[in-house]
Amino acid sequence: MEIAELGEFGLIRHLTENIELKNPETHKGAGDDCAVLEFEAGRQVLVTTDLLMEGVHFDLQYVPLKHLGYKSAIVNLSDIYAMNGRPRQMTVSLALSKRFSVEDMEAFYEGLRLACEAHGCDIVGGDTSASLTGLAISITCIGDARPEDVVYRNGAKDTDLICVSGDLGAAYMGLQLLEREKMVYNQQLLEARKRGEDLSKLPPFQPDFSGHEYLLERQLKPEARKDIIEALRKEGIRPTAMMDISDGLSSELHHICSQSHTGCRIYEERLPLDYQTASLAEEFNMNVTTCALNGGEDYELLFTVPLTEHDRVAAVPGVKVIGHITKPELGLQLVCRDGVEMGLKAQGWKAI
Amino acid sequence: MEIAELGEFGLIRHLTENIELKNPETHKGAGDDCAVLEFEAGRQVLVTTDLLMEGVHFDLQYVPLKHLGYKSAIVNLSDIYAMNGRPRQMTVSLALSKRFSVEDMEAFYEGLRLACEAHGCDIVGGDTSASLTGLAISITCIGDARPEDVVYRNGAKDTDLICVSGDLGAAYMGLQLLEREKMVYNQQLLEARKRGEDLSKLPPFQPDFSGHEYLLERQLKPEARKDIIEALRKEGIRPTAMMDISDGLSSELHHICSQSHTGCRIYEERLPLDYQTASLAEEFNMNVTTCALNGGEDYELLFTVPLTEHDRVAAVPGVKVIGHITKPELGLQLVCRDGVEMGLKAQGWKAI
Repeated sequence: MEIAELGEFGLIRHLTENIELKNPETHKGAGDDCAVLEFEAGRQVLVTTDLLMEGVHFDLQYVPLKHLGYKSAIVNLSDIYAMNGRPRQMTVSLALSKRFSVEDMEAFYEGLRLACEAHGCDIVGGDTSASLTGLAISITCIGDARPEDVVYRNGAKDTDLICVSGDLGAAYMGLQLLEREKMVYNQQLLEARKRGEDLSKLPPFQPDFSGHEYLLERQLKPEARKDIIEALRKEGIRPTAMMDISDGLSSELHHICSQSHTGCRIYEERLPLDYQTASLAEEFNMNVTTCALNGGEDYELLFTVPLTEHDRVAAVPGVKVIGHITKPELGLQLVCRDGVEMGLKAQGWKAI
Repeated sequence: MEIAELGEFGLIRHLTENIELKNPETHKGAGDDCAVLEFEAGRQVLVTTDLLMEGVHFDLQYVPLKHLGYKSAIVNLSDIYAMNGRPRQMTVSLALSKRFSVEDMEAFYEGLRLACEAHGCDIVGGDTSASLTGLAISITCIGDARPEDVVYRNGAKDTDLICVSGDLGAAYMGLQLLEREKMVYNQQLLEARKRGEDLSKLPPFQPDFSGHEYLLERQLKPEARKDIIEALRKEGIRPTAMMDISDGLSSELHHICSQSHTGCRIYEERLPLDYQTASLAEEFNMNVTTCALNGGEDYELLFTVPLTEHDRVAAVPGVKVIGHITKPELGLQLVCRDGVEMGLKAQGWKAI
């Protein structure tokens, strides 16, 4: 069905009409000028926002819209957990070009709602408009926390342990794999066109992902680490500093150290890597440590705890101690497997 | 200066480093995974969001970036006032293509900050990323209100008076004017090119806006009606339903009547029009009533009050009573100057 058949208001209504509001703090969801929320007395409100642009943050040639909806929610939910908070509400704005159908948007919302349901988050509004070019997705997520629970980036102290959840670099390797298969596919199309073949009669393209399923999942369907936050709380461990790993471990360590006025030392041999990540990096002739440090999109948690918590934090499943915080004058160091120390470089985003 | 020189984090820091946080509810602004807010006990939190896309919502050929920043903030602030709330915080996400410079973004932020300062709103975070195509702007505004003050769209009752602030249709006529001058300019360029002239040596284009300054201001620098909200509060008038006029009076009346399960009757002769709006509509051979009903981007307030408030609301400067709420079976009617009643049509957005 074409979106024009429903119109702007019809589309919003269609996508949001069956959304149940489950949180007691959600007083009014979509349908008015604003959503209206009412938090328990004494709670702090957390707000995070992300703007995702087609061609920069996602490629619709290989990302199904349902996965895109899911991931768009996760990247925001992850920021709430990174403050040690609890996600509560989400607003979703979409700018759509003409090529999208109502069914496309239903698929997007299906993924979005799956993620929100898994994390107890109400969809409370948004905005749908036209785009002359690609798809733009803007999500704002709101969470809450007791003031004494909120964890900032600036609380790391000398000798604190540096911990990471899950493993690193897999989402980045998943992206490399998808890019490779896309190139193979485009190359096949090009050759068929040169031979004058009818492209619509080509056999369906079979991308080769065997043995790399985990990497694809990490790229296409990342998770926000609610489980780690809950496990730490259960153990009574409150991180001194925390953030999620979206731009890559190295970049995030720079944020924590700069805001906490510290240095750090992490150990290459302690970086958590999945077997598939290491194996594909080797196949692609890439340095797996570089992938783990700068890959990005892991959505794992990076946090610091006092040294005295070592035994308790090391016992939490899915958490690995990778190094420790140092005095600022020691800088940010990676201790390589051979014992050599290297300065950790931050890789940022560059204008393209 | 090219944005690449600063990088993503450098640009965000540069744009936000001098932002003072003034509201006691703003516990932590930009620089962490989330902003952290702490509202007074017993207040409701209002959330609104808008996504603005280049080529759909604005045309950089005639909109200066400082004005664009100002207007981007205003459209969100207006939604908070439309709930009878008070704006408190804002997050700002931008997706930028390579053609923008650091100075461009400074100009955008200058406008943004002007609007936020005028409305007591803290800028508490956001996101800057690349765009392959045009500029995308996503703003989320957060406000607060006492629960008993919040006004929804669904509270209008039979016989309530329908009121509008300011005047209607001027922003739309301002847009028509800008589009005309853009066409004249592009035509001149085309002809000069045909004649083989050096385009860089053409005399600077002088658009003809004389006598239409008000229309331009309404299009390029709209205001959010904080003053009306304050005046109503001072008079002790609490609207039964309210929203801001962004898509056009007719479309907004449909929202209020459909959510309140009512009809309405408004009077053509009572629609507030500025002289410049009427005069340019005549020049362009357009029906000025249609402009006032469907023009959009007025950012005025549309609200209903009990009939008993007639004398008090009519005495509020800048407010005009344009009709009244009716039983739902009477539908939405416009009473024309000649006494004929016509059904009010809602014009929505269509996919382009």
